[in-house]
Amino acid sequence: MKAFNDLADFSNEEISELIALASRLDKHPEPEALKGKVLSLLFLSPSLRTLASFQAAMVRLGGGSFVISPDMSIHGLETRPGIVMDGSAAEHIREAMPVIASYGDAIGIRAFAERKNINADMAETEFAALTDLVDTPYINMESAMNHPCQSLADWKTMDDHGIPANGGKFVLSWAYHPLALPLAVPAATLHMAAKRGMDVTVLRPEGFELPEELMQKARSAAASSGGSVTETDQRGEAMQDAQIIYAKSWSSTRHYGDRLGDQKLREQHLDWCVNESWFGNADKECRFMHCLPVRRGVVVADEILDGPRSIVIPEARNRMLAQMAVLHQMLGRSS
Amino acid sequence: MKAFNDLADFSNEEISELIALASRLDKHPEPEALKGKVLSLLFLSPSLRTLASFQAAMVRLGGGSFVISPDMSIHGLETRPGIVMDGSAAEHIREAMPVIASYGDAIGIRAFAERKNINADMAETEFAALTDLVDTPYINMESAMNHPCQSLADWKTMDDHGIPANGGKFVLSWAYHPLALPLAVPAATLHMAAKRGMDVTVLRPEGFELPEELMQKARSAAASSGGSVTETDQRGEAMQDAQIIYAKSWSSTRHYGDRLGDQKLREQHLDWCVNESWFGNADKECRFMHCLPVRRGVVVADEILDGPRSIVIPEARNRMLAQMAVLHQMLGRSS
Amino acid sequence: MKAFNDLADFSNEEISELIALASRLDKHPEPEALKGKVLSLLFLSPSLRTLASFQAAMVRLGGGSFVISPDMSIHGLETRPGIVMDGSAAEHIREAMPVIASYGDAIGIRAFAERKNINADMAETEFAALTDLVDTPYINMESAMNHPCQSLADWKTMDDHGIPANGGKFVLSWAYHPLALPLAVPAATLHMAAKRGMDVTVLRPEGFELPEELMQKARSAAASSGGSVTETDQRGEAMQDAQIIYAKSWSSTRHYGDRLGDQKLREQHLDWCVNESWFGNADKECRFMHCLPVRRGVVVADEILDGPRSIVIPEARNRMLAQMAVLHQMLGRSS
Repeated sequence: MKAFNDLADFSNEEISELIALASRLDKHPEPEALKGKVLSLLFLSPSLRTLASFQAAMVRLGGGSFVISPDMSIHGLETRPGIVMDGSAAEHIREAMPVIASYGDAIGIRAFAERKNINADMAETEFAALTDLVDTPYINMESAMNHPCQSLADWKTMDDHGIPANGGKFVLSWAYHPLALPLAVPAATLHMAAKRGMDVTVLRPEGFELPEELMQKARSAAASSGGSVTETDQRGEAMQDAQIIYAKSWSSTRHYGDRLGDQKLREQHLDWCVNESWFGNADKECRFMHCLPVRRGVVVADEILDGPRSIVIPEARNRMLAQMAVLHQMLGRSS
Repeated sequence: MKAFNDLADFSNEEISELIALASRLDKHPEPEALKGKVLSLLFLSPSLRTLASFQAAMVRLGGGSFVISPDMSIHGLETRPGIVMDGSAAEHIREAMPVIASYGDAIGIRAFAERKNINADMAETEFAALTDLVDTPYINMESAMNHPCQSLADWKTMDDHGIPANGGKFVLSWAYHPLALPLAVPAATLHMAAKRGMDVTVLRPEGFELPEELMQKARSAAASSGGSVTETDQRGEAMQDAQIIYAKSWSSTRHYGDRLGDQKLREQHLDWCVNESWFGNADKECRFMHCLPVRRGVVVADEILDGPRSIVIPEARNRMLAQMAVLHQMLGRSS
Repeated sequence: MKAFNDLADFSNEEISELIALASRLDKHPEPEALKGKVLSLLFLSPSLRTLASFQAAMVRLGGGSFVISPDMSIHGLETRPGIVMDGSAAEHIREAMPVIASYGDAIGIRAFAERKNINADMAETEFAALTDLVDTPYINMESAMNHPCQSLADWKTMDDHGIPANGGKFVLSWAYHPLALPLAVPAATLHMAAKRGMDVTVLRPEGFELPEELMQKARSAAASSGGSVTETDQRGEAMQDAQIIYAKSWSSTRHYGDRLGDQKLREQHLDWCVNESWFGNADKECRFMHCLPVRRGVVVADEILDGPRSIVIPEARNRMLAQMAVLHQMLGRSS
């Protein structure tokens, strides 16, 4: 495996194999599988789960990792091409990227969206500028519009909890949050659920529609796997027979890059906080998922997070297991 | 071993076994004992020795660790229950704790006392709120009123230096320090020396008495092991025949949570800086111990730290060895 | 090996052995060589390559490491001897150094020059004060006037690219940079190239002469190995038939410790930015080296860094391999 950048690059069979491998490594540890192997971890954006789970994954497989983030060093990292570096940045990514990569057998890279221009973000301009500089295999640890490690973990989490792939009803719901957040997780989640063959509804207020390009990508995946994709701003309609509600806040696409316009619109939707009243016509066993971190009482009520619907903790643990499977395939002897 | 939280949870025989194991691992390394095992390290309070020694301990046993501290992330961690998280904190400990723990086979947790209310601190309210969220085995890396890793290392250090358990004379002395410090180390040290069977004197100025509950716990431990516990503000009386002086500054218990009251009182005791003149009637070979970090010329004179009495460096190294023994029992195959 | 502090402490045969070992470990990994061994890493100065490459090196050899830097802790570290520590620093290096070292089988130490007094820096006063406190083997990860890991990597890089040792023409060139930088890399590089037997020219503007003591050390090394050392401010003369140009900015030695005097002088030399026009009379295959980080458009033109002359990326990767060889000799079973 040369890159783990987008679930769309893998067939459903390949994904099933990765998930089976993740489960096997959980039950039957292989502490020598990646003996002496090194994963470089570059965090241009902050992290808790990703930071912890990748380090733990490498140890469990017998290897190790190191972490580089710009705040660990006086060296600011310059990203603009062709610039005369007489300011504060002491190093350019054109040197930093290949050097950091050269110390590892693979590199994980996290770089959130700039959220100035939606076309640049959709094109993954920044992330591609980074990975173009790297010869080793790489892992997308969250880019402007993708988060494949989260999606692989989410897919496994639904398998673990017996949520059907074909015919399963999946609601991806926008939720209120005081800040304008990236679209990476909703983009990846929408595609993942459609690719898994589920009937997916995107539930969001007007002004928070996901970009048409993402909807098309999901519809195309659904078409191949027997699923479907719809969108609505009607909660009751969306939640009908739902087996999963996956909550996540994201930026207004109508006001993308316009902080004040976004804020004005989102503050009209303070009531988009998932609580038990949402589940009236859902499947009785409907589960709650979220990628974390999550704001209690804002995105979701305590009663949900602390009750039997929530599977956010096993979902988070699956990050480690899913990544172990990816690393095993990417760096293992049989690779 | 499900938890290493308090030396009081272990019999003297169990402690001797841990110390024997620590010594054995020092002489006969077992670099495969914890192959592929992961220790999660959560530092809600800062650290140097604990941070370094736990990471080193895991490597020496063939495993590894990862470190999470709030300042490594933009995510502030919220601890208050039932709160609407519309402020700066992006994550609640109710999610963060079980997730971080789920990536490890055990978790080490450090959270200093809040030092607002002595009863809350004595009850370990905050630390218990953290460990209650965790299913994996855990290690207390210093809580409001305990520091069992330091105490196990200190016990071993006295064994290493031939300080007798029964009949050994141990002085725990308050010392001046410009800041009001937690009671965790004096609390743990007092109990440890009493449990070891020593004749323990707490030497401190008025207003710096240790809480009666701690004194009672130590007296009870002493009663079981043949030791004794007394307290005084008379240096000469305390140091008579002393074989160990263990210096440590701590907050005034009379002015607990009252910074100005504490400061006014402590500044009357600038002369509580251990120097050679303290040892006039002590045992000729009386040794000096301190958990470090220590302020030279403030808590203790250079002549002591740089002279033959000081055993603070082997004491600090024993942190690593003691923790290796705990980890080996907690995570090893025979556990 | 008790210390890796200065290339001058090793014969050319010993250096060749280290480089051969580095190449062997690259081709034939030994992920069990340092099983359970720990490298303590103390960064009193910031780092990217050194931080990453040492951690990666230890993982590749089956061991591990931990990192301590003052900004990871509230503990400021006091370095002045005999001081009363009633200020902000909570710990003295006299405790911190031996404790940190005691958790490892070896320690790597980085501490840049103070750049107040050139004699103190030349005498390595500060670095020696640190290593004097340590019993374990140690590695100089850059001191006031040395950087032996960089030099070993540079030597190997020239071997890898077929640059002749005896008779090879090496230009160490000053370059413009907005800040006054330490002399450690030019000092180490000058000596390394001379010791390798090359004909070395130091190319620098007036006021940026390297200290006579460094020139003497290099001349003496050259005398033993059949090389030569000259200096000039004439670019064309220096570059004649050059096979390597090694660019690096450094402080004015005429204005050492005088920031404004240094700045005034260096700003007269904004044109010392290596570009293709420098190579008119150089060897056709003349290569460009730099220790990184490097400021594009300031120290060197993009056309050089992005063109075939540059070998800075393999040079940086050789840091890891060279250090693996040092660690293998220092900590391996046969050591």
